[in-house]
Amino acid sequence: MTETQANKPSTISELFNRAKDNLKQKGTDVPLPVASNYLASSQAARELLDSIFIQTRLFDPVEPDAGLTLFGAKMKTPSFCSALSKPPYLSDGDMVELVRGVGKASSIMMLGIGGSELLQTAIDTGTPVVKIVKPYRDTELIYQKVRDAEARGCIAVGMDIDHFYGGYRDGRSRLTDTFAPKRTEEIVQAISMTKLPFVVKGILSTHDALRAAHIGASAIVVSNHGWGSLDFSVPSVIALPDIADAVGKRITVLVDSGFRTGNDVFKGIALGAKAVGFATSVLLASSAGGAEGVEQFLGFITGELKRTMAMAGCPDLASIGRPLIAASPKMTPWW
Amino acid sequence: MTETQANKPSTISELFNRAKDNLKQKGTDVPLPVASNYLASSQAARELLDSIFIQTRLFDPVEPDAGLTLFGAKMKTPSFCSALSKPPYLSDGDMVELVRGVGKASSIMMLGIGGSELLQTAIDTGTPVVKIVKPYRDTELIYQKVRDAEARGCIAVGMDIDHFYGGYRDGRSRLTDTFAPKRTEEIVQAISMTKLPFVVKGILSTHDALRAAHIGASAIVVSNHGWGSLDFSVPSVIALPDIADAVGKRITVLVDSGFRTGNDVFKGIALGAKAVGFATSVLLASSAGGAEGVEQFLGFITGELKRTMAMAGCPDLASIGRPLIAASPKMTPWW
Amino acid sequence: MTETQANKPSTISELFNRAKDNLKQKGTDVPLPVASNYLASSQAARELLDSIFIQTRLFDPVEPDAGLTLFGAKMKTPSFCSALSKPPYLSDGDMVELVRGVGKASSIMMLGIGGSELLQTAIDTGTPVVKIVKPYRDTELIYQKVRDAEARGCIAVGMDIDHFYGGYRDGRSRLTDTFAPKRTEEIVQAISMTKLPFVVKGILSTHDALRAAHIGASAIVVSNHGWGSLDFSVPSVIALPDIADAVGKRITVLVDSGFRTGNDVFKGIALGAKAVGFATSVLLASSAGGAEGVEQFLGFITGELKRTMAMAGCPDLASIGRPLIAASPKMTPWW
Amino acid sequence: MTETQANKPSTISELFNRAKDNLKQKGTDVPLPVASNYLASSQAARELLDSIFIQTRLFDPVEPDAGLTLFGAKMKTPSFCSALSKPPYLSDGDMVELVRGVGKASSIMMLGIGGSELLQTAIDTGTPVVKIVKPYRDTELIYQKVRDAEARGCIAVGMDIDHFYGGYRDGRSRLTDTFAPKRTEEIVQAISMTKLPFVVKGILSTHDALRAAHIGASAIVVSNHGWGSLDFSVPSVIALPDIADAVGKRITVLVDSGFRTGNDVFKGIALGAKAVGFATSVLLASSAGGAEGVEQFLGFITGELKRTMAMAGCPDLASIGRPLIAASPKMTPWW
Repeated sequence: MTETQANKPSTISELFNRAKDNLKQKGTDVPLPVASNYLASSQAARELLDSIFIQTRLFDPVEPDAGLTLFGAKMKTPSFCSALSKPPYLSDGDMVELVRGVGKASSIMMLGIGGSELLQTAIDTGTPVVKIVKPYRDTELIYQKVRDAEARGCIAVGMDIDHFYGGYRDGRSRLTDTFAPKRTEEIVQAISMTKLPFVVKGILSTHDALRAAHIGASAIVVSNHGWGSLDFSVPSVIALPDIADAVGKRITVLVDSGFRTGNDVFKGIALGAKAVGFATSVLLASSAGGAEGVEQFLGFITGELKRTMAMAGCPDLASIGRPLIAASPKMTPWW
Repeated sequence: MTETQANKPSTISELFNRAKDNLKQKGTDVPLPVASNYLASSQAARELLDSIFIQTRLFDPVEPDAGLTLFGAKMKTPSFCSALSKPPYLSDGDMVELVRGVGKASSIMMLGIGGSELLQTAIDTGTPVVKIVKPYRDTELIYQKVRDAEARGCIAVGMDIDHFYGGYRDGRSRLTDTFAPKRTEEIVQAISMTKLPFVVKGILSTHDALRAAHIGASAIVVSNHGWGSLDFSVPSVIALPDIADAVGKRITVLVDSGFRTGNDVFKGIALGAKAVGFATSVLLASSAGGAEGVEQFLGFITGELKRTMAMAGCPDLASIGRPLIAASPKMTPWW
Repeated sequence: MTETQANKPSTISELFNRAKDNLKQKGTDVPLPVASNYLASSQAARELLDSIFIQTRLFDPVEPDAGLTLFGAKMKTPSFCSALSKPPYLSDGDMVELVRGVGKASSIMMLGIGGSELLQTAIDTGTPVVKIVKPYRDTELIYQKVRDAEARGCIAVGMDIDHFYGGYRDGRSRLTDTFAPKRTEEIVQAISMTKLPFVVKGILSTHDALRAAHIGASAIVVSNHGWGSLDFSVPSVIALPDIADAVGKRITVLVDSGFRTGNDVFKGIALGAKAVGFATSVLLASSAGGAEGVEQFLGFITGELKRTMAMAGCPDLASIGRPLIAASPKMTPWW
Repeated sequence: MTETQANKPSTISELFNRAKDNLKQKGTDVPLPVASNYLASSQAARELLDSIFIQTRLFDPVEPDAGLTLFGAKMKTPSFCSALSKPPYLSDGDMVELVRGVGKASSIMMLGIGGSELLQTAIDTGTPVVKIVKPYRDTELIYQKVRDAEARGCIAVGMDIDHFYGGYRDGRSRLTDTFAPKRTEEIVQAISMTKLPFVVKGILSTHDALRAAHIGASAIVVSNHGWGSLDFSVPSVIALPDIADAVGKRITVLVDSGFRTGNDVFKGIALGAKAVGFATSVLLASSAGGAEGVEQFLGFITGELKRTMAMAGCPDLASIGRPLIAASPKMTPWW
């Protein structure tokens, strides 16, 4: 990078801070305009989840069963590890341990960016693995990764569509050289290349959910990709109920972004999801205690969920529904 | 406890703090995800109560009478001491003084965990006592305590159903060895064992309220058990109006959790309760001044309530109703 | 006051602080329960006023006239000095200067507690004075003060009914020896004793407004008496529109409590008041600059009001109405 | 300024601070009443914009075109520089550089206060310039400036009507000697003096929007003039949808006040504007890097807008509409 490039501001924030400095040198102190918060969707998601209360039904107690079958895999919990790419602070070995922990918790693993070798080692742990392919600019690479996933033994494969335009944070786009928008025909082509169930991740509108169902996806992940996609996108927790109403009977609706607790999982399922994904939390659990930490984390989540199911009188996941939740009087219920 | 057990994290919070430490040692500083607030129901209850305003009707002033009869006992105040178990910082003697103070205020006492001896001494103070039995795993113990309560002279007896699954705080279950879910038949059996009015405590849905009425309960306490039962349960103050509409004509509807002032009592009654319970506040009052402190506390509450009744033009408790309260325009009225 | 009396807690807050001290001595640190905020009505009023926005209509500019006639007095401003009793930090002479300032601003003065001598000196300044009599326990004193007000030359006389039960602050009643509830017949009697227009101050419900109109009051002041009457009373700004709709065509509806600016006056009038009272602000203005300070204050208020009227296209006070205001989308409009 | 004038308080705030000082000298400490926030409209605008979420539609990706034609000028971005008067900290040369930067970004420049010479230099940069004339007390000056703008080559000319009564901040009017309300006939006259499209800036009601359309304006700027016109005016972002519905098919509806990001532009257009103005931000960008800084700023805005358009499935500005946005459940949608 040349000196000039280094000096060129790459966001509004950097530009304005330069203005502040220049004006201060001239003796003028100018307050910078309050910018929008680039974490708006995440923060709204958290606030919304925390505004949902749960009805209790304690008579006729039940032994809740939190099990379900996803992509043919039997799970003991509706919490899964949402598409994860290895962060710099974890080694390949750490990632494999993480995957192992997911399996020990009888959950399933979605893997994001990563090569065939890591994928194979992950699958070899015995944990059911879903490969989520990034929307590479090089479409052939997508096809190749889809085929590879099937060949190596994934239980499902899918594609992340909310990184069509790269990541976004603090006014900066990332990875737009690597990723690019894909035409529907290209996605259809990817689906046609495998017999595995196909997952489309990054849906936030019924428009896209209906399209995904129409072209043959088996499942969608309603997701605002944490802080990584579009600031001020509709939070997944707002988008979920309408989407579940629109396609929930035809395809599997999963959700992630901002869920943190077993009660959050209960709320996500009440809003229409079949299962709820965790990513940041699983990474942390792995950093805390490797495979055992991950197993513990999913255990805590599932334990709280089952306790809450029991208190709400829900013997199984199918009995968790919207009548059991109530929005704070400060909110208009959006479901 | 072995070294290993001591080291095993028992909540998500502990697990994540360990991750933070590990990552810091590797030179990576990771922000922990914002967790849900485990006091959500209590905080919502407080905020909701504080968002209710009271109409004044000053013409044709009245001398308010705050008296009522509960379980045959004549009370001069609709505030009562909600089910209390002796905390470590009070002695048995302190508890008896507390009960005496409740009686001096012409109120009634609900006693939670505690043996026959304490119960007898409490009853001997002359204060009307209601025994609230915990949902012991050992059902026979419940039956025995119900019979004991009647034999010793309680005015009513009941059972706490929101501790079926133990207490819960900061992601941790407590007392699940001691308490356990009880089948409806077991509750029916407990009711059949006594001629006393039977109270079911811990109701938060019309579903449970209707069940309680159906199986012969005389009264229910709408309660989210402070911070002790289910995080994000519907706060009792939200659940109350629907429940009162559903069963208020057949059985006695009481409420507790988060009430603090005489105005709060007015609001609770306007929302449909016949009387309002205080627990934490009574403990504090007892710590401040023993029997006299408790009497003073209930006196302050009743004094403020009567002043407010006078200003709202209510000669008696029956005349306190929903038309006299208004929700803040920031809230959707939930009644 | 004896030692014992001094030691006896007189509010819940004092009682709980004692508990905290006692428990700390025993080595237990207990968090005190969060109490309701005893300034709730005032704070809500402020927040509500600040959530109202004003439409501008700039075409066809007008020269606004903020004048009106109240109780026969011509005023150049719809802001008046609401019932004021002399605070300790002002001398009798200061009060007279304050009244003089109100007159210099072409407004009217409402005087609260105070003897005949002060009343006479106030009237002698030439400022139109309305005497607001307190609801004295001694009803004859009320009648005497009503007759005295007429005899000395007040333009109207009235009675404060929201101090029927004394003042109230921080859980403590005040002045209940001096004030007491008055029966409707007593108010009727007071009205019958004078030919002056009669003002009833402290109305917060259509119930009371209709009663006031029915028994012959000429005007009412919708007021929650700042922090001095009932905590959690409906703020006057919420109560106003319904009351104005109910009686605004038959009697004069005034308002006070929490108004601070010229825009607030615009909003109060849009919500249905004919004029808006200031008390705390007038006291401060008087402390800042005596008669001139008060005149300046009412001048600032009126100047801002007229500028806003001009910008909203309102040539006179009668043209200020609810279509010109909008509630924040965070609020449900309450009018 | 004489000593006396210097000492005379010119706002309520100054008056009250004097009261506080005086009372402190007497040993009385009085809390000042909480005043309304004089930036209410701006703050509400920001909060409202941040409460709007955007739907994504990623299937069938589009290459968004953010271009439009305003006043005959082809723009590559719907963000423009809203009426700007030279601040003290910029030189005339700086202003010209700023204008040049606007042109380099293929946008248009609205110029506020400033003489013919600056206007000419600005036009000579080749950037399309719209002259927004202030509502001078001296109407002839307005006419002269309108004719001058046409003669020198502006692409449009207009008038700011929200400074009819001067600026306003912290309770203080400004510039009322220079500016004054203009009668509709005077505006009609100004319009008749030029063949250029005429812009009326400072509209916040459908009343004024309809009037502007009726008398022949080609465009309006819905604007609450940042902090400079009427405190508690309806924020432009609230006023916009109704105004666009009322006149959007007949005249060009522009908007400014409080917009900061490319997403804000998307939201403004979804609410009914054809383009969105920036003023403070352009000044800062200019201070940061002159013409290049301004070009960069508008580039960042447009880049973010186009990325968001792509993610929302909008090939052009006309396809951005209200179905693509959602209000936070804490807000009532105002559109």
